[in-house]
Amino acid sequence: MRDIHLVPVSYFPSENLEFPMITNLQTITPNPLFYVRNHFEYPAIDINTWYLSIEELVSQPLKFTYADLKNMNKVTLSATLECAGNKRSLFEKKAQGNQFKLGAISNAIWGGVRLKDVLVQAGVSPSATEIVFEGLDYGQRNDMDGQVFFERSLPVAKALHPDTLLAYEMNGEPLSDKHGFPIRLIVPGWYAIASVKWLHRIRVVDQPFKGPFQSIDYVILKKENDYNHALPLSPVLINSTIASPTEEEEMAVGTNLVEGYAWAGENSVTKVEISTDGGTLWAEANILDPDVPYSWRRWSFAWDSQEPGPYTIKSKATNDRGEVQPLKAEWNVKGYQNNSIHAVNVHVISPNLVNSVLH
Amino acid sequence: MRDIHLVPVSYFPSENLEFPMITNLQTITPNPLFYVRNHFEYPAIDINTWYLSIEELVSQPLKFTYADLKNMNKVTLSATLECAGNKRSLFEKKAQGNQFKLGAISNAIWGGVRLKDVLVQAGVSPSATEIVFEGLDYGQRNDMDGQVFFERSLPVAKALHPDTLLAYEMNGEPLSDKHGFPIRLIVPGWYAIASVKWLHRIRVVDQPFKGPFQSIDYVILKKENDYNHALPLSPVLINSTIASPTEEEEMAVGTNLVEGYAWAGENSVTKVEISTDGGTLWAEANILDPDVPYSWRRWSFAWDSQEPGPYTIKSKATNDRGEVQPLKAEWNVKGYQNNSIHAVNVHVISPNLVNSVLH
Repeated sequence: MRDIHLVPVSYFPSENLEFPMITNLQTITPNPLFYVRNHFEYPAIDINTWYLSIEELVSQPLKFTYADLKNMNKVTLSATLECAGNKRSLFEKKAQGNQFKLGAISNAIWGGVRLKDVLVQAGVSPSATEIVFEGLDYGQRNDMDGQVFFERSLPVAKALHPDTLLAYEMNGEPLSDKHGFPIRLIVPGWYAIASVKWLHRIRVVDQPFKGPFQSIDYVILKKENDYNHALPLSPVLINSTIASPTEEEEMAVGTNLVEGYAWAGENSVTKVEISTDGGTLWAEANILDPDVPYSWRRWSFAWDSQEPGPYTIKSKATNDRGEVQPLKAEWNVKGYQNNSIHAVNVHVISPNLVNSVLH
Repeated sequence: MRDIHLVPVSYFPSENLEFPMITNLQTITPNPLFYVRNHFEYPAIDINTWYLSIEELVSQPLKFTYADLKNMNKVTLSATLECAGNKRSLFEKKAQGNQFKLGAISNAIWGGVRLKDVLVQAGVSPSATEIVFEGLDYGQRNDMDGQVFFERSLPVAKALHPDTLLAYEMNGEPLSDKHGFPIRLIVPGWYAIASVKWLHRIRVVDQPFKGPFQSIDYVILKKENDYNHALPLSPVLINSTIASPTEEEEMAVGTNLVEGYAWAGENSVTKVEISTDGGTLWAEANILDPDVPYSWRRWSFAWDSQEPGPYTIKSKATNDRGEVQPLKAEWNVKGYQNNSIHAVNVHVISPNLVNSVLH
C-alpha cells in the first residue's frame, strides 16, 4: 500500500528528483526510482531523424542511426551514477545550487555499445586530447546570454576505455525519455555529469574544452568566483550513506538495523565501519553485495541498543587503495564531492515512558 | 512532462509524505498531492460493517452507518490542515521525530456533516468536558508495551462548533483510504493532529483525556521528559512559507517572482511582507486569494533584483488580531509549531559571468 515516490528537488526551470533513500535497500535501482538530474527542459527527439555524429579530428566523420548502434556488439555492465552535488545540503556551510540530500545516486545495469567501437571506426587523430559530447538538451543559463546545448568532454584515454558505453538500455529496458533516449553516454566511476544524456554529437578535439558545464559548473572552487584556480572534479570518491535509520528517528530499545550503501567510483569498497557513539568506537558492517566494478554495495549492521537516549550513528567506507572517507569533506563554493563520514542522530526510546508519565 | 510527486519523509513504520511545496502555487491542493501523515499502518476497513459509535456521557448511545451520515444535512468548507511538526527541520536546534520541511500542510474543501448534529442527536451530558475521538488505526509505540488505537480529544465547545465536521468528501471526491475513509474528523484552525482519520468511536467524557497522542506526543515540552510542565498545542499560529525561490537557488538578474502561502488558523491573514535584504526593509506582497476562513492565501511579490550576489529573502505574515510571525519560534523538544519568519538564501547571477571567466 506504500506509494514509493521520487523526491522532488526542483521542477523549474528543470526537473530534478532524488532516489528515495528511505525505501528498502535495493542493489539495482528500479527504473521508476532512478534519480533524475537535468539542466534544461527535456528535449523532444524524433528517433526517425536522430543520428549520432562523430566529427572533427577523425579520419572519417561518421553518422550512426539508432539501428546502426543496436546492430553493433552489445555489452552490459552495472554502474552506480552519482551526481557530483549529491549530499550538497549536508555541508555545514551552505553551497549554492539544488540542495541535494542523500538520493542523487542510483545504480543500474546499462546495455549498449562501447564508445571506443564507434571512435575506432571513425579513426581518432593522434593529435586528439579530448572528446566532446553534446546532448540535445539546451536552454538558457543565468550567467550568459543566448542558448547553449549541454556539452561535456572526456580525456581520450577515458573515452577509449572499454567500459565507457553508449547505452541504449537501462535495466533491460530501452532508455526512457527522461534518462536520455535514445543514447546516454555512461562513464563508469566518474560523477554522473560526464554521462551525457540525449547524446547526438561527438567531437574529437585537440584543445581543452571550455564549455560552461566544464569550466563554470562542475569545478571545485575554493573561493567565490576564483575560476583561475578551479580544479576539475575527481573520479567518484569513496563514500557511504546510512539509509536507515533517518535523521532524528525515534527507535525502540532492542536490536535495530543500521543499513545503507557504500561506493568507490573506479575502485572497490573493501570495508564499511559503523560507530554508534559518535565516532569513537567502530565495528565492521556486513557487506551484502559482491564486489561488482563501479557498483555500490549494500551493507547492514545489527545495533544492540538497550539504553534509551540520543545517539549519533556514523558510517565510514574504505576502498582497495586504503582511502577512507574523511570526517569532513572540504567545502567548496558549488558544493561538490561531499564524501564526509555520514552521521545520523537518533533517539532510543524507553519502553516505560508512557507508564512513567501517566501513572 | 513533469511528474509531480509527494515528498517522502518516512515509509516505515508508517507512511509520511509531504506536499511538494516547489510545485506551482495552488489554492486547493489536488487530492494526489495532499500531504499524508500517519502514526501507524493503514487500517483495513469494511464499509459494510463500519459504523460510527457515540458513547458514554450521552442521553442515548447511537450508531451511525455511512449511509446514515450521508443522508444528513451536508455542509462543505475549505480548511487548511497543517501538521504540528511542519517545518520541524527548520529549527536550528534539531528536534526529534520526522524531519518535516515546508510541505506538511495542504488545503482542501471538505464535505460532510456537522459533528454537533450527531452529538445533539445523542444528547451530550451537561457534565461533559471533552469529547474523545478514536480512529481505526492502531499499532505499537516505542515508548509503551502493547498496542494502542489512535485517539485524541477536543473540548466540548470546539466539538460543538458548527465548523467542526465529520467529513466524507475531500475536494468533491469520497475521502480516500489514505486520508481517512470513510470519515475524517475535520477541526478547522487546529493543528491537523486533531483531525482524526478513520474515525469509528466518539466518547463523551468528564475527565481530561490522557492518551499518549494527547499527553506524550503533541505537547509543547520545553525540556526533555519534563512532562509535568507540558503545554497543549495552541490553535494554528500565524505563519507563511516562501514556496519559490528555494534554498540556495540561483536566479537570473532581473525581475524574479517570490511567492508562497500564508495562513492563520482560526484567524485571518491580513498582510504578508517580504524582505530581500535579510529583514531590514519590508514591502507588502500581493495576496492572491480572498480571505476564506481557515484557508491559506497565496501571495506573490515581484522582486527587482538587478545586482548579482547572495540575498536572504524573508516572508512575514500578520493576522487580523495583529499577531505577527516571530523572528525565531520558541524551540521545543518535539519540534512543534514552528512559525518563525521564513528565510531563504538565494544567489542572483551575473549574466556576464561566463564571458568574464572564459574570454
